[in-house]
Amino acid sequence: MDYYSSHISKLIEEFSKLPGIGAKSAGRLAFHILSMSNEQVDALTNAISSAKKNVRYCKDCFTLTDEEYCPICRSQKRDHKTIMVVENTRDLAAYEKTGKYSGVYHVLHGAISPMLGIGPNDIKLKELMERLRGDVDEVIISTNSSLEGETTAVYISKLIKPTGIRVSRIASGVPVGGDLEYVDSVTLLKALEGRVEM
Amino acid sequence: MDYYSSHISKLIEEFSKLPGIGAKSAGRLAFHILSMSNEQVDALTNAISSAKKNVRYCKDCFTLTDEEYCPICRSQKRDHKTIMVVENTRDLAAYEKTGKYSGVYHVLHGAISPMLGIGPNDIKLKELMERLRGDVDEVIISTNSSLEGETTAVYISKLIKPTGIRVSRIASGVPVGGDLEYVDSVTLLKALEGRVEM
Repeated sequence: MDYYSSHISKLIEEFSKLPGIGAKSAGRLAFHILSMSNEQVDALTNAISSAKKNVRYCKDCFTLTDEEYCPICRSQKRDHKTIMVVENTRDLAAYEKTGKYSGVYHVLHGAISPMLGIGPNDIKLKELMERLRGDVDEVIISTNSSLEGETTAVYISKLIKPTGIRVSRIASGVPVGGDLEYVDSVTLLKALEGRVEM
Repeated sequence: MDYYSSHISKLIEEFSKLPGIGAKSAGRLAFHILSMSNEQVDALTNAISSAKKNVRYCKDCFTLTDEEYCPICRSQKRDHKTIMVVENTRDLAAYEKTGKYSGVYHVLHGAISPMLGIGPNDIKLKELMERLRGDVDEVIISTNSSLEGETTAVYISKLIKPTGIRVSRIASGVPVGGDLEYVDSVTLLKALEGRVEM
């Protein structure tokens, strides 16, 4: 693409590496950047850099947060004896959007997938088991209803059963094969209400 | 969105401002950024900053380039007596991709649009007329086949006619209402061959 400036080509190349951005979208984004004011461009690059620099894992639930402990884990209003296990921070956000779940979370950052070579030690599972040594009444497994999510749910329930802590799985109100983060709040709540003992 | 870290919310907000990026794509991009290595994130932010800092207009044709004059205007192999007028640098790139056009370009950076309040003085038209004082045989108008593009083409042809320089318009092989940058090379070449006197 030497008919573009090398800086433009480089920018298009970098945008193309992002998920869901094809060559044409990348070109459109690159030329949009060039049409933005210096202040707007600085706001974008600063947002990227400072998110990358300041965001870390919550020491309790491992969600992505700005501080040592996330606002949910710090809150006295939340029921710390109920832990919902999710695959990632976006799934946590999906349940938070319902405004009806008052427990806390545990973010696995992935799901067990023999196909992709992701085993129990590659997700925050050991950390979940450590948390269960404390005072916990119930673990609600809200992994996706995909093959990996179901595998992970079964694996976790088998680990927890011997501890005597109640383990439940959100109901199949969640569309099979669907991504939790795209499910509407009503369906998410129905799935929560209809959860079954594992 | 206080269930996200403020840095993540800010990043999602910045991504949402970009064209074609909705709330969900912005969220996906933001979490992807957090999963990238520091080096990858630096490569992205540097590409954005340096493109914005170093890209400028070519002093002859006004395309976006890294240097005072773009490679096409500097080239001795191009026919500098034939000027193709395009709306933007992406349209220039579309014709360059055909590899068959040997003339030079003039980038207007827009099209006349009474609806949007864009007049002849808001695009690089005065600059085109200045170039025509030199040794020019033909001006090929390759603005889009949209209402604005056609309006601009008619306006420019009326300005040029009195100078005695040949003015042509690419043929209507280009789909009506379509965006020049998305047209395939074969169609673009047919349109070039079939251009008609204005």
